[in-house]
Amino acid sequence: MRNLKLILQYDGTRYHGFQIQPTVTTIAGELNRVLTNLTKSPVTVQGCSRTDAGVHAYRYCCNFLTEFPIPAERLPIVLNNMLPDDIRAISCCEVDEDFNARFDTISKTYRYVINTNPNPTVYTRNYEWQYGKSLDVAAMKKAAEYIVGEHDFKSFMTSGTEVASTVREVFSLDVCQSDDIIEIFITADGYLYNMVRIITGTLVSVGEGKIFPQSLPQIIDAKNREKAGPTAPPQGLYLYQIRYDL
Amino acid sequence: MRNLKLILQYDGTRYHGFQIQPTVTTIAGELNRVLTNLTKSPVTVQGCSRTDAGVHAYRYCCNFLTEFPIPAERLPIVLNNMLPDDIRAISCCEVDEDFNARFDTISKTYRYVINTNPNPTVYTRNYEWQYGKSLDVAAMKKAAEYIVGEHDFKSFMTSGTEVASTVREVFSLDVCQSDDIIEIFITADGYLYNMVRIITGTLVSVGEGKIFPQSLPQIIDAKNREKAGPTAPPQGLYLYQIRYDL
Repeated sequence: MRNLKLILQYDGTRYHGFQIQPTVTTIAGELNRVLTNLTKSPVTVQGCSRTDAGVHAYRYCCNFLTEFPIPAERLPIVLNNMLPDDIRAISCCEVDEDFNARFDTISKTYRYVINTNPNPTVYTRNYEWQYGKSLDVAAMKKAAEYIVGEHDFKSFMTSGTEVASTVREVFSLDVCQSDDIIEIFITADGYLYNMVRIITGTLVSVGEGKIFPQSLPQIIDAKNREKAGPTAPPQGLYLYQIRYDL
Repeated sequence: MRNLKLILQYDGTRYHGFQIQPTVTTIAGELNRVLTNLTKSPVTVQGCSRTDAGVHAYRYCCNFLTEFPIPAERLPIVLNNMLPDDIRAISCCEVDEDFNARFDTISKTYRYVINTNPNPTVYTRNYEWQYGKSLDVAAMKKAAEYIVGEHDFKSFMTSGTEVASTVREVFSLDVCQSDDIIEIFITADGYLYNMVRIITGTLVSVGEGKIFPQSLPQIIDAKNREKAGPTAPPQGLYLYQIRYDL
């Protein structure tokens, strides 16, 4: 069997996330359908992560096994004629047969976009958090410094999720401002459920002056979701980059 | 009766244009429904122009008659809670009872957005022409100069349309480039069916070297749709500004 690694870009607006679900439209559902049609044999893609409904991917990695003899570099062209216009195949290459897009990640980077303009346009409503008020970015940057490192991120996880460990390592967390747009870039070895959106919501609370940057260590130590800020909405979030040891 | 002038912004992606039609979703259909619900009395909005399916409006003007006693400046807030999120009320004011959003226009400005980047993102696919190749903008600017002025624009009209006169005055036509984005701004006293999209398609043919800028006078004189370039796709087009003698 060939193992193909496929890089995608998608607009998550219409989808209930990546992961296949029985009754709703998902990215994996569309991919499996199109790849099964193309190769005339059942295909099940393995994604690098679940993404929530409405969350986008600038770069998403998945892999699948197939006997289909298409050259890997031809596949994106063929797929882009078959996929809906909100999912685009960027590139494809053949990889070692034991490569797994989910388990072999070294780090993943997410980007979150906040628009502070009080009169944003309708055209970007699905692609940013239209927050509409100015934020104290210097305070947000200061708070971000406390989040970098290996911590128990239980305060930044939607409760009810079962995981073996809530310890993750955040390699970097940058807050950048350019005119009305604030971008947050976070790179970590892994993420708890809603972790990026809760970190973003907490940084926004800091930017509003409701949480002091110096309170971040206590919020982390509390291991209590109620101590962190709100969960930021999905439409501002993009899976941005995935690193593998390839 | 009060006559209210309402300024809207909308994302035309989901709609079959502004003008009400019996079996499909239109901007006017949504507005009439919401205003009728709000005022408990049938409302029919008068738009400033038809727009095609998929075409956007950065600023769209319409007016309607009502006895409903809401202060005009409160109306946008109330409407924005009732309208779908791809239609936004920007402002409202009470005007003279004989004001008509369609017949009282002095000029309308359209904006057309072309993306020449060969790898555009999926997020902007509904908001620009993802043309994907570079264009000779200097030649496009030169061609644009021939279009400005009062001309018979029959060559730039989708045939089959019945109109009293095909003469229109183009007050200005600007082609601007910023990195990969080419924007075309056109201001005229009125437009024939598909006129902006055919002018844009013709300018793109000039940018490709398929039509010489100097050929524009002959194309205009021919009064023949086949002499002009193709009709540019709708998703790059925005009704941008409307002027009234108010």
